[in-house]
Amino acid sequence: MEAELKELLNDLESLKRSPPDLLNSSIDKLKMRVEHLSNLAKSSPARRSKVKDMSAEVIDSNPYSRLMALQRMGIVHNYERIREFSVAIVGIGGVGSVAAEMLTRCGVGRLLLYDYDTVELANMNRLFFRPEQVGMTKTDAAVQTLSDINPDVVLESYTLNITTVQGFETFMSSLKNKKFRPEKEGSGVDLVLSCVDNYEARMAVNQACNELNQTWMESGVSEDAVSGHIQLLIPGETACFACVPPLVVASGIDERTLKREGVCAASLPTTMGVVAGLLVQNTLKYLLQFGQVSRYLGYNALKDYFPTMEMKPNPQCSNAACVDRQKEYIIARPAREAAAKAEMVAEALLFTGGPLHADNEWSISVVDDGEPDGLDFPSSVGLPEGVVHELPSADVFRPPPAPEAVCLADDLEDLRRQLDALNAPQG
Amino acid sequence: MEAELKELLNDLESLKRSPPDLLNSSIDKLKMRVEHLSNLAKSSPARRSKVKDMSAEVIDSNPYSRLMALQRMGIVHNYERIREFSVAIVGIGGVGSVAAEMLTRCGVGRLLLYDYDTVELANMNRLFFRPEQVGMTKTDAAVQTLSDINPDVVLESYTLNITTVQGFETFMSSLKNKKFRPEKEGSGVDLVLSCVDNYEARMAVNQACNELNQTWMESGVSEDAVSGHIQLLIPGETACFACVPPLVVASGIDERTLKREGVCAASLPTTMGVVAGLLVQNTLKYLLQFGQVSRYLGYNALKDYFPTMEMKPNPQCSNAACVDRQKEYIIARPAREAAAKAEMVAEALLFTGGPLHADNEWSISVVDDGEPDGLDFPSSVGLPEGVVHELPSADVFRPPPAPEAVCLADDLEDLRRQLDALNAPQG
Repeated sequence: MEAELKELLNDLESLKRSPPDLLNSSIDKLKMRVEHLSNLAKSSPARRSKVKDMSAEVIDSNPYSRLMALQRMGIVHNYERIREFSVAIVGIGGVGSVAAEMLTRCGVGRLLLYDYDTVELANMNRLFFRPEQVGMTKTDAAVQTLSDINPDVVLESYTLNITTVQGFETFMSSLKNKKFRPEKEGSGVDLVLSCVDNYEARMAVNQACNELNQTWMESGVSEDAVSGHIQLLIPGETACFACVPPLVVASGIDERTLKREGVCAASLPTTMGVVAGLLVQNTLKYLLQFGQVSRYLGYNALKDYFPTMEMKPNPQCSNAACVDRQKEYIIARPAREAAAKAEMVAEALLFTGGPLHADNEWSISVVDDGEPDGLDFPSSVGLPEGVVHELPSADVFRPPPAPEAVCLADDLEDLRRQLDALNAPQG
Repeated sequence: MEAELKELLNDLESLKRSPPDLLNSSIDKLKMRVEHLSNLAKSSPARRSKVKDMSAEVIDSNPYSRLMALQRMGIVHNYERIREFSVAIVGIGGVGSVAAEMLTRCGVGRLLLYDYDTVELANMNRLFFRPEQVGMTKTDAAVQTLSDINPDVVLESYTLNITTVQGFETFMSSLKNKKFRPEKEGSGVDLVLSCVDNYEARMAVNQACNELNQTWMESGVSEDAVSGHIQLLIPGETACFACVPPLVVASGIDERTLKREGVCAASLPTTMGVVAGLLVQNTLKYLLQFGQVSRYLGYNALKDYFPTMEMKPNPQCSNAACVDRQKEYIIARPAREAAAKAEMVAEALLFTGGPLHADNEWSISVVDDGEPDGLDFPSSVGLPEGVVHELPSADVFRPPPAPEAVCLADDLEDLRRQLDALNAPQG
């Protein structure tokens, strides 16, 4: 096209020297050339049009047939519900960009993307960004690619750093905005995915989600590129990111002093692709309610080992909003148990048409072995300065709950006294 | 651009009615507009240039800095060796295309791509292909995308069906071609990745690799989209694909009768992304010699469960080339053991500066518990017609090896007699 436009320029110049009687025919020839250029411009990639309803019809032109087949296979009860959900992705790097593409291809309702960085050639060893996008912001480049892939997804991008005061405020207000689904309870999003590469940004996501009582998932890949993890965080119910600080931070070393000029972390498209896949799989299981949602899943690439674990919240957590959510979670316990019991009874009735074991000859009753009734207090005594136990000790004997309903307010008073005692200078 | 060209057309037409004294200035205005269009056309994607040597320099413009960092981190001894390797990928679908992109971004030397299918909108629920590529062959679309991402990778594409006679011949000759690295031993490729979605194509890859004594990796995703696996196959050493036929085939049911009109398999970008990631991670570990290469790794997405196992070859395998490779593997055993022992001694000398335990007061010697010395014979007696045991039984007592070197030829004679006995009509 460039060459043809250059020729057109020359011919326009020679038009000036055209004899008046030939002017009209010369202009007509130029017009034909411009028409040809128009056709060339038109043949540039056409975007796929929006699809109003997700259909399960098995035809080549249906972008959702293989997803709707999840219903026929009995995996997902109602796949189309995915269009109701809003997912926020913080950090559009090696994990976040792939997670965004997966959710876009799955036809999620709305994606909120946050990043302040630009695309560089040094990012080309991971999936998603292309060399011609170098110099664009990651958010702009992502919106360009994702809207071409699936125009049905509502994309919102925020080119900002959530660890700045202004950035954090915009982050918070975007999460609260409920215009996409005004009837939704809680915040305006269904899940926040943290795909950032540093402690400060994780703490900012943690702060926002604790304040908003927003469930989120954490992800990370090691600096040597051969391990990673995903983690589900439900404020008050599971450990928050501040409940279990990494040792490097707990011991007071500034993370930035670990990075040196001329040194970068290693990364691989494989490890990041696997972590993004596990993260979005967990997201789909959480949103569409199928399978088991993992609380923590690690990936050790050298040994193909995938550790799992659960982390309870730390009552000593330094994050005040986390402690508030923990209190609310404990207060809501009777209601939660009653609801779970009602659901069990309803299911039993559904299957048997009557109450299960109505006679109960042996007086068997369900004993709760779920939540601990009190709060644990890990002690920092005897550890080096700045280091605390990662989790409340499991070895401490817990007295059985009192026969009467425990008065939570007293417990918390007691807790405050113990905390004060711990904070007092050691003898 | 289309709109501007349309305007240009109108203005050319009005040029005909321009008063002669204003003609030149009107033409100059048109020329400026064409120049603007030229600039627009120029700003269309520029491709990144080739990079002669992989550098570890930490600058934004280096596409390999994060990969070369694997050396500094002590993960990979010599990352740049990746440029010597040729990998063949059969099937450029949901797993194969992502595997190809990962290897391209890792800077692999040469990729051979095989597929006969075209891109459809129905493929858009998986990573890699874009809606504007609909109608292109998957091989052409892949070459377009991959050469833009990394022009350093040598791409060869074969638009063919390897299960046809002609297709299989071309497949075989392309694997044998050693022009990329003439000094390489064996075939012209270092690894074949099978990313196909049907039994027939897997059997064709199996046949080719057994004939060429070519190590390969299998991958697969279940029809309900929530599980998958990868598997390493070394002819003669591990089970080949025909050693352990899936039950549906063993029992004589034609796989195609299981597929019906208007019904398609479910698929998810997450499961396929994870399987592709695990497959290419295993490929990198195998080629660049780091970590543990997995023989078999499963992925159960509903429970985040990752089973592993090893499969020994089946001496009864229906594939003649597999049985040949098994014989060669057994014949080469003394040489292999001697080499392993020599390596151990060399390593011990390297670390201690002298032979390890030169005195050996208690006469401790290394006892080999590696390969079985004989061959197992699973029995099909008592099973439904057409069904055989998946693996040789591990329960059968194996006599210890004779003190003298076993004469393999006798063993094989013995094996043939036993096979004949098994093949005889059952009483």
